[in-house]
Amino acid sequence: MGVGPGSEDYLPPAARRALEQAEVIVGYHTYLEYLGPYLVGRQVVTTGMTEEVARCREAIRRAEAGQQVALVCGGDPGVYGLASLVLELLAEREGPDLPVEIIPGLTAALAAAARLGAPLGHDFAVISLSDRLTPWEVIERRLRLAAEADLVLALYNPRSHGRQEQILRAQQILLEYRPPQTPVGVVQNVARTGERWWISNLERFTGLPIDMATTVIIGSRQTRVLDGRMVTPRGYRL
Amino acid sequence: MGVGPGSEDYLPPAARRALEQAEVIVGYHTYLEYLGPYLVGRQVVTTGMTEEVARCREAIRRAEAGQQVALVCGGDPGVYGLASLVLELLAEREGPDLPVEIIPGLTAALAAAARLGAPLGHDFAVISLSDRLTPWEVIERRLRLAAEADLVLALYNPRSHGRQEQILRAQQILLEYRPPQTPVGVVQNVARTGERWWISNLERFTGLPIDMATTVIIGSRQTRVLDGRMVTPRGYRL
Repeated sequence: MGVGPGSEDYLPPAARRALEQAEVIVGYHTYLEYLGPYLVGRQVVTTGMTEEVARCREAIRRAEAGQQVALVCGGDPGVYGLASLVLELLAEREGPDLPVEIIPGLTAALAAAARLGAPLGHDFAVISLSDRLTPWEVIERRLRLAAEADLVLALYNPRSHGRQEQILRAQQILLEYRPPQTPVGVVQNVARTGERWWISNLERFTGLPIDMATTVIIGSRQTRVLDGRMVTPRGYRL
Repeated sequence: MGVGPGSEDYLPPAARRALEQAEVIVGYHTYLEYLGPYLVGRQVVTTGMTEEVARCREAIRRAEAGQQVALVCGGDPGVYGLASLVLELLAEREGPDLPVEIIPGLTAALAAAARLGAPLGHDFAVISLSDRLTPWEVIERRLRLAAEADLVLALYNPRSHGRQEQILRAQQILLEYRPPQTPVGVVQNVARTGERWWISNLERFTGLPIDMATTVIIGSRQTRVLDGRMVTPRGYRL
């Protein structure tokens, strides 16, 4: 299940119910921070950020033992979350099927876009810049083709302590296809403590604070800044 | 504001609050159907499906008159919804600024993906097949480049009464880049009355019932069907 970007404002009833019904909540501690009231009276299992496989296996082990388990991700479990991993692990498992429900959540791109205005108002691509699990050549090729397709781009995992260069490389690629003045939105900690956002442009946005808790939205050739908001028109005749 | 795919299960507190605080609710009647309890004691303004500009202008007119207005879209107002249009109209308007807040919602692709399994587990593109406002050449070019980039594709507005051919053309293009056995998920009326979904493949999916209330998710070359679920692995070593 996903808990959305953080604030309980974006936790829909389906997700709330799953938390309330769970006997065990399994998750990475950052996401659990936002679930304070739901943790009371429940077993809580946390693992480190890079221990995704261990976390999913533990959730499955608990479910096999008959417990009702909520495996918690930030945002949407289906978008760079644990839904695909847990389904892979369940498929390679012997024994009777375990009932599983995927509860979607508001992924960061949608929450970030709402802060910026309406940058995802037309066709877009969602691409992660993390090359921990995907070869950089694949990522670069996708960036290049999405840029050529004039899709708006929502970039996840744009920069981390150990990965500083990917966002600069993405910028260079995009500049081959779009003007330097193309609007770019940068949203940090969306719907969490410390939320900040900026509207910049393709030439300059890499000077802004960008980290793992940041979503970067790069406009298409149609994207405009109107009254301080980033807008990709759908094409209505006004 | 967005009301998500339909069911109140996916209406987060931020959206519920906006409806409760509104004096006027403006929207297309299909989306308002799902808001029965919130319509009581409020003015309700509906317009036809293709009257988006009129609907937004009416919302702005009401706000100018001092009313608290909720302009309602299905899904997320930022994804093929009215957020971009209303911001365009506000920007061309004279007079003092009107306060506006964009409240994001669960867009159909995320809800549909959760039903199918985890098809959006890696990079993806969201493309509308409606050529009412976008030239078909632009859509086709985007499909081709996204296919070449091996992005999972979430297709919106895949077919309507008056537009039967676009989904067949999209299928042909995708078949140039991906094997006929590529998993394709088709989800109709997600989280609404009459919800149905199927997992098929690229060669066969166009035989399924597909209409305007359907989201089609086309797998990448990495997408698999595991235990009856559509899964795009992120690449974890199991």
